[in-house]
Amino acid sequence: MGPFSFRVTHHDQRARRGVMTTAHGDVQTPAFMPVGTQGAVKGVTHRDLEQLGAEILLSNTYHLYLRPGDDLIARRGGLHAFIGWPRPILTDSGGYQVFSLAARRTIDEAGARFRSHLDGSEHLLTPEKAVDIQAQLGSDIAMVFDECLAHPADAGSVRQSMERTLRWARRARDRFQAIYAHGGRSQGVVVTNPGQAQFGIVQGGVSRGLREESAQGTVAVGFEAYAIGGLSVGEPTDVMYDMVAHTMPSLPEDRPRYLMGAGTPQDLVEAVARGVDLFDCVLPTRNARNGQLFTSAGPINIKNARYAEDDRPPDPSCSCYTCRTCSRAYLRHLFQTGEINASTLNTLHNLHFYLDTLSRIRDAIVFGRFESFRLAFHESLSRRLHDS
Amino acid sequence: MGPFSFRVTHHDQRARRGVMTTAHGDVQTPAFMPVGTQGAVKGVTHRDLEQLGAEILLSNTYHLYLRPGDDLIARRGGLHAFIGWPRPILTDSGGYQVFSLAARRTIDEAGARFRSHLDGSEHLLTPEKAVDIQAQLGSDIAMVFDECLAHPADAGSVRQSMERTLRWARRARDRFQAIYAHGGRSQGVVVTNPGQAQFGIVQGGVSRGLREESAQGTVAVGFEAYAIGGLSVGEPTDVMYDMVAHTMPSLPEDRPRYLMGAGTPQDLVEAVARGVDLFDCVLPTRNARNGQLFTSAGPINIKNARYAEDDRPPDPSCSCYTCRTCSRAYLRHLFQTGEINASTLNTLHNLHFYLDTLSRIRDAIVFGRFESFRLAFHESLSRRLHDS
Repeated sequence: MGPFSFRVTHHDQRARRGVMTTAHGDVQTPAFMPVGTQGAVKGVTHRDLEQLGAEILLSNTYHLYLRPGDDLIARRGGLHAFIGWPRPILTDSGGYQVFSLAARRTIDEAGARFRSHLDGSEHLLTPEKAVDIQAQLGSDIAMVFDECLAHPADAGSVRQSMERTLRWARRARDRFQAIYAHGGRSQGVVVTNPGQAQFGIVQGGVSRGLREESAQGTVAVGFEAYAIGGLSVGEPTDVMYDMVAHTMPSLPEDRPRYLMGAGTPQDLVEAVARGVDLFDCVLPTRNARNGQLFTSAGPINIKNARYAEDDRPPDPSCSCYTCRTCSRAYLRHLFQTGEINASTLNTLHNLHFYLDTLSRIRDAIVFGRFESFRLAFHESLSRRLHDS
Repeated sequence: MGPFSFRVTHHDQRARRGVMTTAHGDVQTPAFMPVGTQGAVKGVTHRDLEQLGAEILLSNTYHLYLRPGDDLIARRGGLHAFIGWPRPILTDSGGYQVFSLAARRTIDEAGARFRSHLDGSEHLLTPEKAVDIQAQLGSDIAMVFDECLAHPADAGSVRQSMERTLRWARRARDRFQAIYAHGGRSQGVVVTNPGQAQFGIVQGGVSRGLREESAQGTVAVGFEAYAIGGLSVGEPTDVMYDMVAHTMPSLPEDRPRYLMGAGTPQDLVEAVARGVDLFDCVLPTRNARNGQLFTSAGPINIKNARYAEDDRPPDPSCSCYTCRTCSRAYLRHLFQTGEINASTLNTLHNLHFYLDTLSRIRDAIVFGRFESFRLAFHESLSRRLHDS
């Protein structure tokens, strides 16, 4: 199936160090994908992202489908050409946004009917349509369209939804294979990246049994790799870790494993400890815009009056541009005065913190000292309680 | 008076090429100063500004006095340390903002009494107080507090205002000299930049006679250099050019001349032709945030639907980061979706356009071909009418 491949280069207990190869280049794993919902990571340029060491971006099918439209992007030659990012891109399927953003949605076996949150226009997103849109976007990794449930949900709903997601996975894979077997034209789809890969998504709520069933069923359909969805949606942290741990044995060793939407720095370290290779999360970028900075000694909220005359950088042990050039006092001033630059400088720092954490995780695995890294990381974060 | 000096290195008719030396380094003139009202140029980092070749920033006394306060900034060691910009900074006096932003202002011979636009608190800004604030900020160039009139104003008001500005100039200079003769302590002022220079401001509306009188009076007080204020406020362009041309002979040849608040790219070229050395203007930055991009073939408005599928860079002859990596289609998408990055990318381009124009002006003067540059520049800008 095209140029997609994955190679585990080092093991350290259940943690893995590897290289994921895509049509637009390699990604060193475990990897964190900054979220560029609408084709841009809010507040930072592609140049900044490259300097921060980001190797892969996540972009959003739902948003790009509605605006500017996948047809327009396909006419530009695909998402890489349109946004000017030549490295790997993963697109989610739009499932999560339909459930969280869209108005008046109704979901049945066919798919999700909804109205745009932008202009109220009516749309039908099906497993096949989500494949088509992503084929037109030409991301390197396309996600299947899955049904997302709110947490908590009763056991019966979780089972029904998990089973529907499995049936949708089959339809999505069939559509994907039909498109890439025939170059897309017979399906009315403009393929902009012939090397696209497709990931399946494991659901099953917080039930070990359903997670296992979902994983086995998804693997039986057969995808380039597998994601764990439906976590990091409000369940207790230890339940999430337990679901991740319990799902891992059902996923093939030789494919990357992607924990969708997680999480805090601690979550990333704990998920790596359980065998996860890929992450995406809006926390570093969204929280940056709200004034929260992640540091090696826990998060600080730059709005806080205590920083008004604090000449230290946000994190004295950090080497990012923001920490090298800005004091907490200046960053607080920028936040208080509503300067755009507050978002930019805070985002640069938070993304550096996340990407640097993943870099240090990869080094630790290579040198067989992930466990001691993990302990030191948690110890550092709990050293003192900052404001939250 | 400290390290401030100015040396004209080349003449080309009335246009001048020079070097202005300040306590924080040299500025090649003619120079454009990006506006960083609250200690930051909106949408771009200091690193971006250095890469764009900006050598001096303008910052705003009124805003910084109200928030975070000049006392707080003085305790940080001054504005350079607080914002992390080690190069030259010019601060305006706050006069213009008191007249345009503040609520319930009353002006008399003492100064301006007003309420903060932020919290309604009451303040009195006098010529002396404006000196004190700027001494605490520690900018390299402090401007005197002048009275700004709306255009048009009747001849009697313009004369009265011009004469008051002259009396205020005398008071400002006395205060400045007292502070720097005694290190500020006896005046209750923390001097953060002992090498600060002070510029006087010529007023006089659109009257040649009053401009001449104001220039002679201001020069008689004696400042490190002189600015022309109260233009670019709505008067016809040729009237502004005429006022500039008419004021020049009254200003000393060996001091930089600063045209405050101007202007369009054409205005800059025309003012240089009349002997101006320094500029500041919010046009490149503010218009960028509103979607207007300056190009060598005139401005374009990126909001326009015609750019939705336009794969060309904003200005095909431009070498800035935005033009090297972004299409009009992508920039329009970012603007339409309200991404912060639209402001950043548009601002990078517009500031590049302004700073690059000044760089080409300086080269043209050195090689004695400013007149042909000027003609080619205007011809290029009027080549075709874009949307405006």
